[in-house]
Amino acid sequence: MISLDPPQNQLKTGVPLYIQIAEALLDQIENGELAPGDRLPAERKLSRALSVNRMTLRNALRVLEQQGLLIRRQGDGTYVAAPKVERQAGYLFSFTEGMRRRGYTPGAKVIHLERRPVEASIGRQLGLGASAMIYSIQRLRLLNRQPVLLEEFTISVERFPKLEDHDLEGRSLYEIMEAEYQVKVTRARQSLEPVLATSFEAELLEIELGSPLMLERRISFDEGERPIEYGKDLYRGDRFRFVTEMAPLEL
Amino acid sequence: MISLDPPQNQLKTGVPLYIQIAEALLDQIENGELAPGDRLPAERKLSRALSVNRMTLRNALRVLEQQGLLIRRQGDGTYVAAPKVERQAGYLFSFTEGMRRRGYTPGAKVIHLERRPVEASIGRQLGLGASAMIYSIQRLRLLNRQPVLLEEFTISVERFPKLEDHDLEGRSLYEIMEAEYQVKVTRARQSLEPVLATSFEAELLEIELGSPLMLERRISFDEGERPIEYGKDLYRGDRFRFVTEMAPLEL
Repeated sequence: MISLDPPQNQLKTGVPLYIQIAEALLDQIENGELAPGDRLPAERKLSRALSVNRMTLRNALRVLEQQGLLIRRQGDGTYVAAPKVERQAGYLFSFTEGMRRRGYTPGAKVIHLERRPVEASIGRQLGLGASAMIYSIQRLRLLNRQPVLLEEFTISVERFPKLEDHDLEGRSLYEIMEAEYQVKVTRARQSLEPVLATSFEAELLEIELGSPLMLERRISFDEGERPIEYGKDLYRGDRFRFVTEMAPLEL
Repeated sequence: MISLDPPQNQLKTGVPLYIQIAEALLDQIENGELAPGDRLPAERKLSRALSVNRMTLRNALRVLEQQGLLIRRQGDGTYVAAPKVERQAGYLFSFTEGMRRRGYTPGAKVIHLERRPVEASIGRQLGLGASAMIYSIQRLRLLNRQPVLLEEFTISVERFPKLEDHDLEGRSLYEIMEAEYQVKVTRARQSLEPVLATSFEAELLEIELGSPLMLERRISFDEGERPIEYGKDLYRGDRFRFVTEMAPLEL
């Protein structure tokens, strides 16, 4: 059941009504009154129950939809989404293994693989000369057959010859590096930025143009502190949340 | 100077041309051929130099604009943006102090402060009873007078009585907690998600509706492991990048 029952004095004066409505619905999702898979009542009914007009209600629903908490299905209705998958921001770990542990069926599809000369900016970051050859690989990752992550990685051909001979859809890249090339990733430097999906990305990830994505850039290093991989991943913002523990930084 | 000079064999077959053009421009920004503040040539000139049509060029520029690497000024032209501010994702630290060290002039403006009963979902996370009173504060943070971050924090009135008597525009919240209430934040659990700016947020942050923002949610704990603050910050995606070092997670 949907209810919005704040005493009048609980309405915040400086915050727009649609944000407050969104927060009240979020409350009900977080405390379990609305569960994943539940369908919200029709807009007309809901706006009456909440005593707001439909424009305000729609704005509130859009906020929650953009945060991935609600899913609108064309011609059907609005549903409470499954909780976002939490990804530990401070750790390098296998997507495949991590997702299996959460009960998902992970999948992978190589959409592009080529050998070509490295571009200057990535060459510098990987410590490669101007004419060095690299593999550039784009791979789509799936959870229960739904595309959720578009990976792109760049690695040296000299260091990983015949990479295309290995099973890049069934095995993790780090696992192949370690088992086939005796190269072990020991640390990475990563950055996270929110970006909007381009039409190319939106089509592959089966989302709307302009949807929020998390762009993760990564340089991975081996035991000898040599850079070995440049990675650029795009995570669907409606399916992932990046979690970290923070300690105080002594200044 | 703008140049795009990949040998033909360097053009990637599976990747749309506008993405490749964007990458080539990014290359020039990263290797310093294009510096912050530089104005790009006019579209007609640039599309000729790059041998692409204007639609492709515009799509490429849009990608870089959305990543905050280019800034389009209405009726003026497109400029190379200043690099994004890096924020360490694994550390709690003072925005004011951190930004001063980078040479910015930080500022703060309280846009909303109220005492009210806590909402259920936040009350649970802060370990507060159903009728507990909280302060809800929205504060806009500025760098060199430009709004870049919209903070919202919720803390217990019982724990921090008369908070409104302190200077929330000139001092950091954690500094006030420590100096005035003898409460020291020792750790926090944080999540990061990409979201789109609502009209309310866009207006305050002086960006376009639907621009990418980084939503940081945070629960901070004191020395006794008691939750003391619920924070919800929205960072402008064109101004910030979140950086972490990653270690392998032993599974």
